[in-house]
Amino acid sequence: MGESSSRQAMDVKEEREEDIRDIENPDAMHQPLLRRRNQLSASHLAMVGAQVSHIESLDYEINESDLFKHDWRNRTTTEVLQYVTLKWAMAFLVGLLTGVIASGINLAIENIAGFKMLTVVNFVREERYWAGFWYFSGVNLALTAIAATLCVLFAPTAAGPGIPEIKAYLNGVDTPDMFGVNVLLVKIFGSIGAVAAGLDLGKEGPLVHIGACIASLLSQGGSDKYRLKWKGLKYFKNDRDRRDLITCGASAGVCAAFRSPIGGVLFSLEEVATWWRNALLWRTFFSTALVVVVLRGFIELCNSGKCGLFGKGGLILFDVSDVMVTYHINDLLPVTIVGVLGGLLGGIYNILLPKVLRVYSLINEKGRLAKLLLSLGVCVFTSVALYFLPFLATCQPCDESLGAICPTTGRSGNFKQFNCPNGYYNDLATLLHATNDDAVRNIFSTSTPNEFRTASLLIFFAIYCILGLFTFGIAVPSGLFLPIILMGSAYGRLIAKAFSSYIRIDPGLYAVLGAAALMAGVMRMTVSVCIIFLELTNNLLLLPIMMFVLLIAKSIGDALNPSIYEIILDMKGLPFLEANPEPWMRNITVGELAVVKESVISLKVVEKVSRIVEVLRHTSHNGFPVIDQDYDSVNGVKKIHGLVLRSHLIKILSKKWFLKERRRTEEWEVRERFSPVELAEKPVQFEMDFTEKELDMYVDLHPFANTTPYTVVETMSVAKAMVLFRQVALRHLLIVPKYQGPEIEPIVGILTRQDLRAHNILSVFPDIAKKDHRN
Amino acid sequence: MGESSSRQAMDVKEEREEDIRDIENPDAMHQPLLRRRNQLSASHLAMVGAQVSHIESLDYEINESDLFKHDWRNRTTTEVLQYVTLKWAMAFLVGLLTGVIASGINLAIENIAGFKMLTVVNFVREERYWAGFWYFSGVNLALTAIAATLCVLFAPTAAGPGIPEIKAYLNGVDTPDMFGVNVLLVKIFGSIGAVAAGLDLGKEGPLVHIGACIASLLSQGGSDKYRLKWKGLKYFKNDRDRRDLITCGASAGVCAAFRSPIGGVLFSLEEVATWWRNALLWRTFFSTALVVVVLRGFIELCNSGKCGLFGKGGLILFDVSDVMVTYHINDLLPVTIVGVLGGLLGGIYNILLPKVLRVYSLINEKGRLAKLLLSLGVCVFTSVALYFLPFLATCQPCDESLGAICPTTGRSGNFKQFNCPNGYYNDLATLLHATNDDAVRNIFSTSTPNEFRTASLLIFFAIYCILGLFTFGIAVPSGLFLPIILMGSAYGRLIAKAFSSYIRIDPGLYAVLGAAALMAGVMRMTVSVCIIFLELTNNLLLLPIMMFVLLIAKSIGDALNPSIYEIILDMKGLPFLEANPEPWMRNITVGELAVVKESVISLKVVEKVSRIVEVLRHTSHNGFPVIDQDYDSVNGVKKIHGLVLRSHLIKILSKKWFLKERRRTEEWEVRERFSPVELAEKPVQFEMDFTEKELDMYVDLHPFANTTPYTVVETMSVAKAMVLFRQVALRHLLIVPKYQGPEIEPIVGILTRQDLRAHNILSVFPDIAKKDHRN
Repeated sequence: MGESSSRQAMDVKEEREEDIRDIENPDAMHQPLLRRRNQLSASHLAMVGAQVSHIESLDYEINESDLFKHDWRNRTTTEVLQYVTLKWAMAFLVGLLTGVIASGINLAIENIAGFKMLTVVNFVREERYWAGFWYFSGVNLALTAIAATLCVLFAPTAAGPGIPEIKAYLNGVDTPDMFGVNVLLVKIFGSIGAVAAGLDLGKEGPLVHIGACIASLLSQGGSDKYRLKWKGLKYFKNDRDRRDLITCGASAGVCAAFRSPIGGVLFSLEEVATWWRNALLWRTFFSTALVVVVLRGFIELCNSGKCGLFGKGGLILFDVSDVMVTYHINDLLPVTIVGVLGGLLGGIYNILLPKVLRVYSLINEKGRLAKLLLSLGVCVFTSVALYFLPFLATCQPCDESLGAICPTTGRSGNFKQFNCPNGYYNDLATLLHATNDDAVRNIFSTSTPNEFRTASLLIFFAIYCILGLFTFGIAVPSGLFLPIILMGSAYGRLIAKAFSSYIRIDPGLYAVLGAAALMAGVMRMTVSVCIIFLELTNNLLLLPIMMFVLLIAKSIGDALNPSIYEIILDMKGLPFLEANPEPWMRNITVGELAVVKESVISLKVVEKVSRIVEVLRHTSHNGFPVIDQDYDSVNGVKKIHGLVLRSHLIKILSKKWFLKERRRTEEWEVRERFSPVELAEKPVQFEMDFTEKELDMYVDLHPFANTTPYTVVETMSVAKAMVLFRQVALRHLLIVPKYQGPEIEPIVGILTRQDLRAHNILSVFPDIAKKDHRN
Repeated sequence: MGESSSRQAMDVKEEREEDIRDIENPDAMHQPLLRRRNQLSASHLAMVGAQVSHIESLDYEINESDLFKHDWRNRTTTEVLQYVTLKWAMAFLVGLLTGVIASGINLAIENIAGFKMLTVVNFVREERYWAGFWYFSGVNLALTAIAATLCVLFAPTAAGPGIPEIKAYLNGVDTPDMFGVNVLLVKIFGSIGAVAAGLDLGKEGPLVHIGACIASLLSQGGSDKYRLKWKGLKYFKNDRDRRDLITCGASAGVCAAFRSPIGGVLFSLEEVATWWRNALLWRTFFSTALVVVVLRGFIELCNSGKCGLFGKGGLILFDVSDVMVTYHINDLLPVTIVGVLGGLLGGIYNILLPKVLRVYSLINEKGRLAKLLLSLGVCVFTSVALYFLPFLATCQPCDESLGAICPTTGRSGNFKQFNCPNGYYNDLATLLHATNDDAVRNIFSTSTPNEFRTASLLIFFAIYCILGLFTFGIAVPSGLFLPIILMGSAYGRLIAKAFSSYIRIDPGLYAVLGAAALMAGVMRMTVSVCIIFLELTNNLLLLPIMMFVLLIAKSIGDALNPSIYEIILDMKGLPFLEANPEPWMRNITVGELAVVKESVISLKVVEKVSRIVEVLRHTSHNGFPVIDQDYDSVNGVKKIHGLVLRSHLIKILSKKWFLKERRRTEEWEVRERFSPVELAEKPVQFEMDFTEKELDMYVDLHPFANTTPYTVVETMSVAKAMVLFRQVALRHLLIVPKYQGPEIEPIVGILTRQDLRAHNILSVFPDIAKKDHRN
């Protein structure tokens, strides 16, 4: 995360220099930035050593320019049908591919880690402890090195879980290189390496990102970079359709991670998506259903023994459907404690993790080698801890009633024999000498109330707290879910242990509750966590206590700090737009906000080429108001014709569609040269090299301008404007004067996403929040 | 439904007469109607014999008038905290009360119906068949008469399920008398009577309505009508908070109906709510969790035998958690058929039901007695069918392996003996001589593949198809869920029967799948139906086939017609605003729409009392633009000051807050007389009786006007304006001219909900849709 966050964060001080460079470097205009030159648009929490980011806002507004209108009117029924069919076909493919890739990842991890574990077990059985350690840590180092190298060299943005960036994307903020082919590949192989290396991270977050990548690539009809494209998808290349498909992808990813179709849909709804429609519910449901079908087929296949060491290991995390849950008043106190601790620990985790990430970003700043070494260092520490800690535990005798399942010596299974004599097992090895998935299964295991001693659980909890904090920021694909589940299950089982003579619910279920509570405490999700755990454990009787625990944990966590995703979004400087305006935003008008910004740069309906070139070179705005002046009237009153996008201006310039005289063009003239599909695509880079003669010519902007941008009157409060901006998913919001007339500019300002962010406003109007607190 | 739908539907022809009456009858102004006098606002599908409706739009917009702004700025932290606490306390109370009332209803129904059934069983056992019939139909008639009389006399709006109205409410359409105390009481007792009478209807829909009623009453702090109010709730009396709470109530209702907390939340999300926020997810989850806790406590209590005949009858509909679901390719074909039939039958049901309702509304028009007789007629038909049909079935020998459970003679249980000798059972009586809940349990029963013969199932299916069509429209509280479940389970089991030698999944589960498929086919819900059935059956292994079946059924149903709720909304003439604009709405501008409407009636900032009285009397608009004229300038240019609401004008008039001269007032002057809380309340009726002198005085409207109404430029397409209107939840949308200036009116028109409805626009611009189809 270090690299990507530092790259994406924005730094106020560097911005001015950047602007000067902009003017000298004509290429800079091809990177339409969200940042602006005035105080308002500064990000407030730039990471240490951050660079200017290339974050781009997305366009969800209906573009009502003459050209697009004409295109829309001329669409045939066949084309519309084609479009609808394609949408469903895409949702189908997203589900299918995500399912297949998830199966492949599981297969790879289980086989690599399984083989490693088997060999280590043999070394230990032969009492060649040091040889075992060298082998164990050697394999782990090699796997980590592969994952980190891939990540550092080919796709720095593939580090971390990717969920915050997906969340930002669906909120309307595009971070570059987030959904490309290289990210997808690095994410797949990096995730396999990192998880198989036994690092304290999961494949869940990466799977969500993988789902989103697949969706994004499909929606583009291939990779932009590698020019693998399919023309049939021309109607699909708009931000809105891409957004819907990425939502599908994220749901499919969660579903693949937890084998939880409904949980996947709800995860997207609760945590990831910003705009939600019922049609989306229905389409994501379709995708996740497909993932489940694929996974089921895969499990069937593996059950027949064709998957090597895999068996049914990686997919069925935990099934307690045979455990009867009986409710008893005695359990109320310990269950409440589980909830309270989940909230508290979650809050503390959310405080500590950013601090670690800050230190890591300092290290990551030093270059690629530093990043690689950091990852390897964490790997060595993890290997040492996992390998040697079990030697601290004393051997426990197996309970006779368990029969053959105790002790085990294979790569998976409960009651690991490890270094113990026959008939004995090492409870700490059961948790640490296993893949993470196995560890979860073992600590969740029911009907084994006395399997783990308190000391072992404490060690397990402590080491995973440390690993959970220090593993997340390294340069490999890493999910947050699994570390939290491990921590949570440990303290859940500890509480069950503390109340052992008293409780009626199985200690294994306490571990489940602990995991859920910590998840709610860290991520602040409720309904989706609830469903994911119910689908994981396959026991609906848990529902009422699960809800109870989650409600407590989330309430306490919310009292302490925001969710971890919000914190990471903030650290990365992504301009996420919250759902609700702050209360004090009612006390300031958009007009007041517009005053502190630089004046609006607008273009005339028929504008000189030289002026357009100058504006494009010297500003990084994405939209320019087009002003129409009524030359016939005496006053020459100005009115707004519309808003033209930077990308369209670039297309006009690159096609050199210039006019000799100052005149309005006819629709056919434009349509001959520009197709709407072409205009909807992102502009390619080109040299802005024009002759004097060309610079003296004119461009008619009127067919390109979106003639009906949303507007607000300058007296409207920021709160109300923000509701409009966020609900309608805007990129630009024009501020018009209360009264228009001669000698009054028809436009007071343009609001963008950055201008509506609470911190940016407060940096300019520091008194406002104070005034609010005074009351 | 007949009565309420006819009352709420609107009729174009009668509107003009109504307008004339308006002028003569000063009271008419106290009924702010959505209807308008121009062509645009006509409802297109008025029910036969419909009357003008009193539908009111809701105000979700932030009111930025001077008064409210001042109020907001002066709110103390304590008050804000009080507000937040209250919101949660409300959600708590909604859950608690809904749970308690649902338990009470279950208890009453099970005991009344149970006692009735026991007596009938005794009659039959003594072979006194006719006496049994007279008793059976007598009790049913009495119960139906009570339910229908309550409904007809005290709360006609309590008939039907209430879900369409809740859906409309959450979309911003308030139908009168929908959430009052009398509706709540009639719904409770009417539902008990109607369900205990054995009519083919469920308590599920009414429970949803009951939850919403409780929420609405709580949010108002008591009943408006009966003046039972608590002043502490003053911050709560706005449409937005009420909307949120009613969403909680609806979720709690579904949860209480199906003991399905997550299903309840998702039902609200998928079917009922129009605007959804994550905070709502979290609060509805809290409410439904409470309902589950109450229901569990209640079941515990009943299990200890304190509930009379109730036992654990009514609440645990069906539990198949012990059935292992194995997937086999053989089941693919029959399962697909279940899905296809679900979609087809659902589509047909949605075609036939409105036709029946139309006929019923003709009957209901004749008066209260007609309504009562219709209900009693349906009751007699139902009683005859349920009582005599089982005599057609031949007795079946009990399977030895079943032991004591076959045959049963109690009021509940499978394998009813009825008129058969010992050791034999009557399979049709098992389905028909039982409460509806019991019938569902019996037809869902697993491990009894040969219990029902094909002939019996066919009779069952046929009779419930007939009853399902003809029961819904009578004047008693009735839910749609149960009739659909009964029909669906019958055909599901029939298909299992047809493929019996071939399938691997239990026929009982086929019944479950059939019920779910038909639900998806009729109501077009997917995720929520899926979750409700999974929570009902407590078996998550069903999930993949359930999703598969639902997807098929919904796709086929959607290809045929809209969902039943949309059809009913349409029949009732409720101006429901769809999520997405129609494609052709891009081809028409709001300016064109404004032209065909009557001209806007606006007020001056300081207006004469006589003018306000006149405007209020002669129009039924809810908002009036307030125009400020700049008298200092030469031209006297007009600008929009804001929008004043009818309710505020009425308050000003009733307080006689008049000025002697034409002047602007100071803020303190206004605040002395009007508190924001008071202004937020609905106005009471009063006689508009003013002296000549008073009529000659002035009112300063500037502190009352919302100074920042949302505006759109006249050139914007209707599609784009609709996105704004719906996303930001508006009631009025002002259309401003492209260019403002001297001698140009600053406002072109006002758009309301009715103006943006597809049918209303098409009635004025019939060519638009055609033009669209031509392409």
